[in-house]
Amino acid sequence: MTREDPDWHDFNSVRVLALAGGVGGAKLVSGLAELLGERLTVLVNTADDFIHLGFHISPDLDTVMYTLAGIANQQTGWGVADETWSFMTEVERLGGPTWFRLGDRDLATHALRTERLRRGDSLTAITDDLCCVLGVRPRVLPMSDDSVRTIVHSDAGTLSFQDYFVRLKCKPKVSAFSFNGAASARYNAKLGDLSRESHRLAIIICPSNPYVSIDPILALPGLREWIGRSGAPVVAVSPIVGGVAIKGPAAKMMQELGHASSALSVAQHYQRLAHGIVVDEADRGAAPRMMQLGLRVGITQSVMRTQADRVMLARECLALAKELRCK
Amino acid sequence: MTREDPDWHDFNSVRVLALAGGVGGAKLVSGLAELLGERLTVLVNTADDFIHLGFHISPDLDTVMYTLAGIANQQTGWGVADETWSFMTEVERLGGPTWFRLGDRDLATHALRTERLRRGDSLTAITDDLCCVLGVRPRVLPMSDDSVRTIVHSDAGTLSFQDYFVRLKCKPKVSAFSFNGAASARYNAKLGDLSRESHRLAIIICPSNPYVSIDPILALPGLREWIGRSGAPVVAVSPIVGGVAIKGPAAKMMQELGHASSALSVAQHYQRLAHGIVVDEADRGAAPRMMQLGLRVGITQSVMRTQADRVMLARECLALAKELRCK
Repeated sequence: MTREDPDWHDFNSVRVLALAGGVGGAKLVSGLAELLGERLTVLVNTADDFIHLGFHISPDLDTVMYTLAGIANQQTGWGVADETWSFMTEVERLGGPTWFRLGDRDLATHALRTERLRRGDSLTAITDDLCCVLGVRPRVLPMSDDSVRTIVHSDAGTLSFQDYFVRLKCKPKVSAFSFNGAASARYNAKLGDLSRESHRLAIIICPSNPYVSIDPILALPGLREWIGRSGAPVVAVSPIVGGVAIKGPAAKMMQELGHASSALSVAQHYQRLAHGIVVDEADRGAAPRMMQLGLRVGITQSVMRTQADRVMLARECLALAKELRCK
Repeated sequence: MTREDPDWHDFNSVRVLALAGGVGGAKLVSGLAELLGERLTVLVNTADDFIHLGFHISPDLDTVMYTLAGIANQQTGWGVADETWSFMTEVERLGGPTWFRLGDRDLATHALRTERLRRGDSLTAITDDLCCVLGVRPRVLPMSDDSVRTIVHSDAGTLSFQDYFVRLKCKPKVSAFSFNGAASARYNAKLGDLSRESHRLAIIICPSNPYVSIDPILALPGLREWIGRSGAPVVAVSPIVGGVAIKGPAAKMMQELGHASSALSVAQHYQRLAHGIVVDEADRGAAPRMMQLGLRVGITQSVMRTQADRVMLARECLALAKELRCK
């Protein structure tokens, strides 16, 4: 690979594989999609998936899909825009469970997905079709068609993820995570489509929760090896800015697991896998120590408030990947 | 039994078992409920039940339950009042099936019922709980906890009921009906609770479709015998008024099956089971021939436009039952 490689002169023929969880991941993915269109593949955490009221719910897949379709609910951070809540109102009246909120429109996704899973279709095929109907250009892949479930070990006992995350609002103090089913799950076979193009591939680890969004993906047997074998530059984006998480319990988890809640901890977490990390201006001071870990560091304004912010961060990630490719 | 039986002097301690299907049945049941409260038991057709989008849907049970709860949708004739349709709108956008309309509020019933059935609860227990939450005083019983499914034999082939009824809008010409599973299904065991009180029991066959609402109930092994053994007066109400059905395909079916579409045909249909029949003023002329069939005939204004109409018809049925009991 030389500086003259035409694929990397600009980003016009670069392919990206993005590893993503929910909200933060979906935002960066949305920026990447604007630059790359169908040259973007998103491998999405499905270890948060669960069955509720008989529906197979895939929170992270939906957040990524809805965000890319431009129909994500900006207020809630999950679900569909212009949502109505008649179903939940009636579930409450009938004495059903209300701790996990399901909007009327959102429910259509869950019902159609569940119905097709029951008929034997794969989550990959179903996601493809939903994305097609919703006009989503990037390829959105569930990390696996096999069942993997995050288990939270905490001072409140062993909890399923949604129990911890939604019902208990992340209040229990965590001590570890495990991923039930991961050892025998196969990573999405469609990743193979990218192997043929690894010379123009970059891999981006989105600013999602390292422990419960990205680690479940990386727990899939052979996936770390596939990433290594691809030779693609791997760029992680820190979800921690100035010591706090933009959204969600990542910082709290870090502390409970005995780490400093810092971008540096994120760098340490990914140091074996990533070649570069993008951090916020607020964390510029930690850059030398990240470089000591062997990481190339990109520094930018990484908090994504607008679509322009998302595209700018995406561009920064691609620029860092290009540097890594050409070094 | 003499005219002095105190239970029958007025209706204050009469118990009624009503056999009912959907809309017409629910209306009379609503009138009966106003007179009898918890002394009314409704045995509801479940042979229209089907699985759609993974939901177990019990159209007749829901119509009866919603009507008794005072939340039935008067406009559509099915589903819940003040309904919203976000789910269906989204199902349509996602390319899912839209021929069977499911309202957002209605969906809560289907989801909670389906979830409990999957956990192994009986339709009877689930219906009890839903009715309790909705403040329904009469006992609403599915005809059976076993699966019975109406099959429509027609010039368009052999059709499942909802296919015929909703998707094909009753257009195919019918030749016969069969009730899959009926031969091995058990009628609702809770009917046994009424056996102890058969001396003050009346049985009313609601003005529901004789072929697809009442016949499936009567097809349950032993049910006709149970009715006979009870010694209770059996009063049928004709769903045909002046040769036409108030709602639904009953008249069309009668013709296609080779009968005149008339109240007399209804009388003939029920003559072995019923002791009396209530018909509309419009069918007064057929009363002599009905009496020749051995039926006592009650004549009234039987079209139920208002709640007062429902109560009046209910009172007429009880009066005829009383006559039969005291004759």
